[in-house]
Amino acid sequence: MDLDALSRRSGEWLRGTGPESDIVVSSRIRLARNLAKYPFVARADDALKSEIEELLHTTLLKLPLPKRLDYVKVDQLESLDRQLLVERQLISREHAESEGARGVCISDEENVSLMVNEEDHLRIQVLHSGFSLDECWREISEIDDIIEESVTYAFSERLGYLTACPTNVGTGIRVSVMLHLPALVVTKEIHKVFGALQKINLTVRGLYGEGSQAMGDFYQISNQVTLGKSEEQLIDNLKAVVPNIINYERRVREALIKDRRQELHDQVSRAYGILRNAQTISSEETMHLLSSVRLGINLGLIDDLEIPTINELFIHTQPAHLQKLQKRHLESAERNVARARFLRHRLSGRS
Amino acid sequence: MDLDALSRRSGEWLRGTGPESDIVVSSRIRLARNLAKYPFVARADDALKSEIEELLHTTLLKLPLPKRLDYVKVDQLESLDRQLLVERQLISREHAESEGARGVCISDEENVSLMVNEEDHLRIQVLHSGFSLDECWREISEIDDIIEESVTYAFSERLGYLTACPTNVGTGIRVSVMLHLPALVVTKEIHKVFGALQKINLTVRGLYGEGSQAMGDFYQISNQVTLGKSEEQLIDNLKAVVPNIINYERRVREALIKDRRQELHDQVSRAYGILRNAQTISSEETMHLLSSVRLGINLGLIDDLEIPTINELFIHTQPAHLQKLQKRHLESAERNVARARFLRHRLSGRS
Repeated sequence: MDLDALSRRSGEWLRGTGPESDIVVSSRIRLARNLAKYPFVARADDALKSEIEELLHTTLLKLPLPKRLDYVKVDQLESLDRQLLVERQLISREHAESEGARGVCISDEENVSLMVNEEDHLRIQVLHSGFSLDECWREISEIDDIIEESVTYAFSERLGYLTACPTNVGTGIRVSVMLHLPALVVTKEIHKVFGALQKINLTVRGLYGEGSQAMGDFYQISNQVTLGKSEEQLIDNLKAVVPNIINYERRVREALIKDRRQELHDQVSRAYGILRNAQTISSEETMHLLSSVRLGINLGLIDDLEIPTINELFIHTQPAHLQKLQKRHLESAERNVARARFLRHRLSGRS
Repeated sequence: MDLDALSRRSGEWLRGTGPESDIVVSSRIRLARNLAKYPFVARADDALKSEIEELLHTTLLKLPLPKRLDYVKVDQLESLDRQLLVERQLISREHAESEGARGVCISDEENVSLMVNEEDHLRIQVLHSGFSLDECWREISEIDDIIEESVTYAFSERLGYLTACPTNVGTGIRVSVMLHLPALVVTKEIHKVFGALQKINLTVRGLYGEGSQAMGDFYQISNQVTLGKSEEQLIDNLKAVVPNIINYERRVREALIKDRRQELHDQVSRAYGILRNAQTISSEETMHLLSSVRLGINLGLIDDLEIPTINELFIHTQPAHLQKLQKRHLESAERNVARARFLRHRLSGRS
């Protein structure tokens, strides 16, 4: 797989074409699976990990899957390429940073990613643009079934799928949506949302998963429980809750545009101006300003830019992407200069 | 005189063509004169003020002066037009706000302004772009001589010209230069300059004279003493001191560009970006950002803008100018919106 080429294009999930994509950036489902005849990754020695990796690597590439897949041996990648895959949401930070034989199978459009020897032997992920949990579920079920025809998963009649971490036991499913909630953030209403979600066992995370800070007003909302409910129930739960958050964000946006249009217009225009003119800019400030601009586009306050461009910039201005573009290691200060140059270039010709 | 037309064009002194005009915006000399046979303005009743105004008005317009002059009866102007002349540096704030018959004679290029019934019966002002005190002196002496052929000034052999305020007695001269000192401000070296100037009896003021705050890093430096020295000595004094300040500012600019080029480039570029994109902006922020951009142009960090445009914007974004442009009274918040629109319009097409 050509990771240089990957760093310059974008996955389908950034295209901003799915339902409700002004607020729901992407929908994601992942399944945690393990092979019955091997110990969990944390319990496997190097030789065993290699054996598991070898087995899954070969199996996955031979599967009659509906999508063309490429396999990448993560342990053989440079640190920069591993970081690139993290920024791309194709592997987890844990997978990038762990030890031993491991890999990832990626589909052409980056909707499907199959991590081998992450916390579990196999992590199946399907990602789609917008609020598309049904599409994700259809696709991931099909993939899961096809894989299960070739391997034997660790499964208990009583508990369901067995996983390395008890929080995943049962369905092994995590259903999540990535929401852009700038209006709820600016009015501080977001805390009410967090409180309500916690009570119904949903988790909120930042752009890059567990422990990551919410940057650019992006929030990943996902199920906490995997046991005692069916996959469909867990998906239905999120499908029932998310529209309320979408409506809440929309109502607050409407109120903002009604009561503070001038101020909001000023804020998003200045953000756009700074992104097109800065000579050095941190990742944090970039996310913050891109979030403003994204809101501005969705509210019709900025009309010469499109959502996919902004979605892409969130990812392409991350450290590894910038370094891949420059084809060399960059210190933080150099990255800030490269990031500003990239933004000016990508946003130029729009005044 | 058509003040609507005036509000849309600029005086010669904003053209940025004079010597050292990267730092010295303009040079100015004014002479305070009074008529021998009348009491000072503060001591004259309305009838007397009208008589003085009538006399000087008629006399000034008949003089064989080298420039075409227009006369404006300041007491008959709307408050907005008076403010316009203040912003334009053609009359003082005191002249705009005082009572009774008073006027101002203005030359086509706005280099010459003759205020009638300000603090003194007559205040002669000559203003030029850049560091041009000799030019100002040649021109103002000639005007002063020509006027003196038609009227008798209050003059004492012992004291010199008699003026309403004792600080002007003697030569009645005030020699001043308007300096743009952003590098000395940003490095806080400016305080050393102030200290040094005070010791040698020079005064520092902001853009709009006595008591006004220095905005946009502009400082007016002028003589404090008018008695006991000849006009030439006072002018020579400023001519000797100002080059030191110019060199100091230049040295600090060079050091900044050497040591903090990236940071400086970022700062001036962002300032430019905000000016081209804000939807609402205060006068103070505008001055601050224009000052950055002016420095950026002078250091070659911004190459699609010229100094005269920026000099003009400092004046044309002032409250009265904006209101003349809109042909109506604007509240502060409306002015901020009008100012932002004007800036976007004037700076558009430059990306």
